[in-house]
Amino acid sequence: MSKVYTHMTMSLDGYIADPGDGTDELFGWYGAGDVTVPSADERWSFQVDANSAEMLREVLAGAGALVCGRRLFDLTNGWDDNHPIGAPVVVVTHRAPDAAAKWPRTTFVDGVAEGVTRAREIAGDRHVSIASADIARQALDLGLVDEVCISLVPVLLGNGIPYFADLTDAPHRFDDPTVIQGKGATHLWYRVRR
Amino acid sequence: MSKVYTHMTMSLDGYIADPGDGTDELFGWYGAGDVTVPSADERWSFQVDANSAEMLREVLAGAGALVCGRRLFDLTNGWDDNHPIGAPVVVVTHRAPDAAAKWPRTTFVDGVAEGVTRAREIAGDRHVSIASADIARQALDLGLVDEVCISLVPVLLGNGIPYFADLTDAPHRFDDPTVIQGKGATHLWYRVRR
Repeated sequence: MSKVYTHMTMSLDGYIADPGDGTDELFGWYGAGDVTVPSADERWSFQVDANSAEMLREVLAGAGALVCGRRLFDLTNGWDDNHPIGAPVVVVTHRAPDAAAKWPRTTFVDGVAEGVTRAREIAGDRHVSIASADIARQALDLGLVDEVCISLVPVLLGNGIPYFADLTDAPHRFDDPTVIQGKGATHLWYRVRR
Repeated sequence: MSKVYTHMTMSLDGYIADPGDGTDELFGWYGAGDVTVPSADERWSFQVDANSAEMLREVLAGAGALVCGRRLFDLTNGWDDNHPIGAPVVVVTHRAPDAAAKWPRTTFVDGVAEGVTRAREIAGDRHVSIASADIARQALDLGLVDEVCISLVPVLLGNGIPYFADLTDAPHRFDDPTVIQGKGATHLWYRVRR
């Protein structure tokens, strides 16, 4: 059955990037092994350990649509309309960019709930992946997330951009996770309790 | 070989207690199973799942001394001089309590480095366990911690008392953990990289 999940890489003290948006300390696991996992963008592939490869392949194969925020869209130039996950992107934004036609596979929607709904329609039987932390938090508070996957990196950054901040409807309780130990990250898959 | 470690129960968003020092959402795993693990204080025992029991027994059997801060000491009345872990306690404090003689197995020491050193002497061949988050943080920054164990609870509290705040010497990098999946907590044992 189609599900809505979010996958983020996080430090042990809860940061998804350093204060300058840097991910050097966090994204090492994407290149820490000798198994090549191709992405949908042929310019990019992952070189991970066998366990992480299994996890990544599942993520890549299952995604039918991806939801992100405007900031991530702008930072990546909308992945040139070809997100590595290989699925159409739904951008949550109050105002679509003037040149929206440059991203024909990308949809611009105002509101997190609307974004998830639109992504579900696009994904059909496949899954919806939420790629921005602030969208993930809001979707959690709205009860729209089925699963939370965290690639937990064994580092304390001390400061940076927190994953879970400003939750308005906590506590959120999850089932015990499925754990996949990768090289440089512990992948934790949680199912959200209703 | 003797090692210095810290074991704390933490929410997925990094809190070790709610804003009012409450641990109801976090300490459920200590009573979530049907295996009884006795503590050194016969008034207390743990009822955990088999995996958590194995982890707890190792923690209890290995500890030769425990280091804590003054706040935890005061909150617990110094565990009536009989900490459940079954080891002498070293309290880091600027001023020993007036009635220090009431706690004959407890040592009062000024300074985190001094506290760990004193605990090492007391522990001998056994391990030193750090029981207070603020002492653990300072000991990490001083390079005095060998292993960090976190019992990660599948809940987002949204706010509370953070485990890792005010680190002065981050990033701290760890090896990939040994993972023990318990009922209500994922026990993650990290070795600190030097």
